[in-house]
Amino acid sequence: MKLFFALKTISLASQIALEEAGADYEVIPVDLQAGEQRSEKHLALNPLGRVPVLVVAGKSLTETPAILSYISRRFPESQLHPEAEMDIARMESFNSYLCSTVHIAHSHRMRGYRWADDVAAIESMRKKVPQTMSECFGLIERNLFSGPWVLGSRYSLSDPYLFTMASWLEGDGVDIRKFPLIQDHYQRMSERPAVKRAIAKADAALGAAARDAQL
Amino acid sequence: MKLFFALKTISLASQIALEEAGADYEVIPVDLQAGEQRSEKHLALNPLGRVPVLVVAGKSLTETPAILSYISRRFPESQLHPEAEMDIARMESFNSYLCSTVHIAHSHRMRGYRWADDVAAIESMRKKVPQTMSECFGLIERNLFSGPWVLGSRYSLSDPYLFTMASWLEGDGVDIRKFPLIQDHYQRMSERPAVKRAIAKADAALGAAARDAQL
Ligand SMILES: N[C@@H](CCC(=O)N[C@@H](CS)C(=O)NCC(=O)O)C(=O)O
Ligand SMILES: N[C@@H](CCC(=O)N[C@@H](CS)C(=O)NCC(=O)O)C(=O)O
Repeated sequence: MKLFFALKTISLASQIALEEAGADYEVIPVDLQAGEQRSEKHLALNPLGRVPVLVVAGKSLTETPAILSYISRRFPESQLHPEAEMDIARMESFNSYLCSTVHIAHSHRMRGYRWADDVAAIESMRKKVPQTMSECFGLIERNLFSGPWVLGSRYSLSDPYLFTMASWLEGDGVDIRKFPLIQDHYQRMSERPAVKRAIAKADAALGAAARDAQL
Repeated sequence: MKLFFALKTISLASQIALEEAGADYEVIPVDLQAGEQRSEKHLALNPLGRVPVLVVAGKSLTETPAILSYISRRFPESQLHPEAEMDIARMESFNSYLCSTVHIAHSHRMRGYRWADDVAAIESMRKKVPQTMSECFGLIERNLFSGPWVLGSRYSLSDPYLFTMASWLEGDGVDIRKFPLIQDHYQRMSERPAVKRAIAKADAALGAAARDAQL
């Protein structure tokens, strides 16, 4: 398996999932600043021009919720897949909320041009991001987070997904300390070996790519 | 099972899925114009204040992709669940794209206030909707749609999801005839008995609610 990724993006959630699953995988950086996601090569992998892309036996799989569910089913021995039918549904529901509401709130900070053409509108969207992200995390803290993990006593792939988005809060102008449960979750996640391995592996791949570029 | 729904919204996809599955379910209208989605009663079901909500044995399930996957697994005899692991992943990926990109493009027409406060910005978002929706459907037509059904020869719950969003195109200022494969799919979907039953059942529930309101 190969994971196409970029630093500080949602691809980290899928990468942590692969580490938690004990999967054998390679990471390949995509340089978003340089616009590599819109290159012909990348568009052949993902016509949407985004990361992450997980390539399995030559086939591309995109969309974080789908990648996470796939990983949890593909590695049953890692126990990442919830057991009860209703818990699987809860995981998928939480992940879909992160993808379609929280990620979108965040995207209005740097990608407003997707939804409007004029600078003033784009600036206006950017300004509202601290508020919308605060509202999303407030809702998660109060209503969606069971604790100690997202779904309750059992760790699931909703956890690295939430962790990755929580890592965006500071840049989005939101103080994570307003959400004590999420802050504690963030701390515990940072200490997991799988999370540390994922970050180290991404850094190493980026370092290698930078060295290659200098040759 | 109870499905909380509203007319012309994405809840139709879940309702068609229930019909295709042969499920025994009740529909309960939520009056979005009257703001019923923000009532205490509805927020107790879904703190996000949205439809659809599928209530199963007293528990709320939200988010269209999660509801569709749940229905496909819950009614295996209806063969709505793809067989191969990679086809399940493709269905989930397609559904997540609809939820997080296409639905969001559409939402910028009437719900721009979610992402900006000033009228000019909201108007600017509204203006771009025909373009973004066209781009999304162009990408589906060219890259994501296998035909005759979304995933290929086998019908899946990506089909009612796409059908429901295609029904928004006219209101979004996009001519469906620009996308012959999707137009043909839309036509074939409209003729399915499950789709006709879903629409008739929703209409009947709305009629009953209107009569109750007049008493
Ligand atoms: N719904 C997709 C969203 C993926 C996405 O938006 N990725 C961003 C990084 S967080 C990206 O690749 N952006 C590049 C661009 O917009 O050009 C998912 O959940 O995987
Ligand atoms: N991600 C959710 C989105 C649900 C959603 O946005 N529903 C809309 C109708 S299409 C709604 O309830 N809007 C009411 C409001 O925004 O007040 C899903 O896919 O189910």
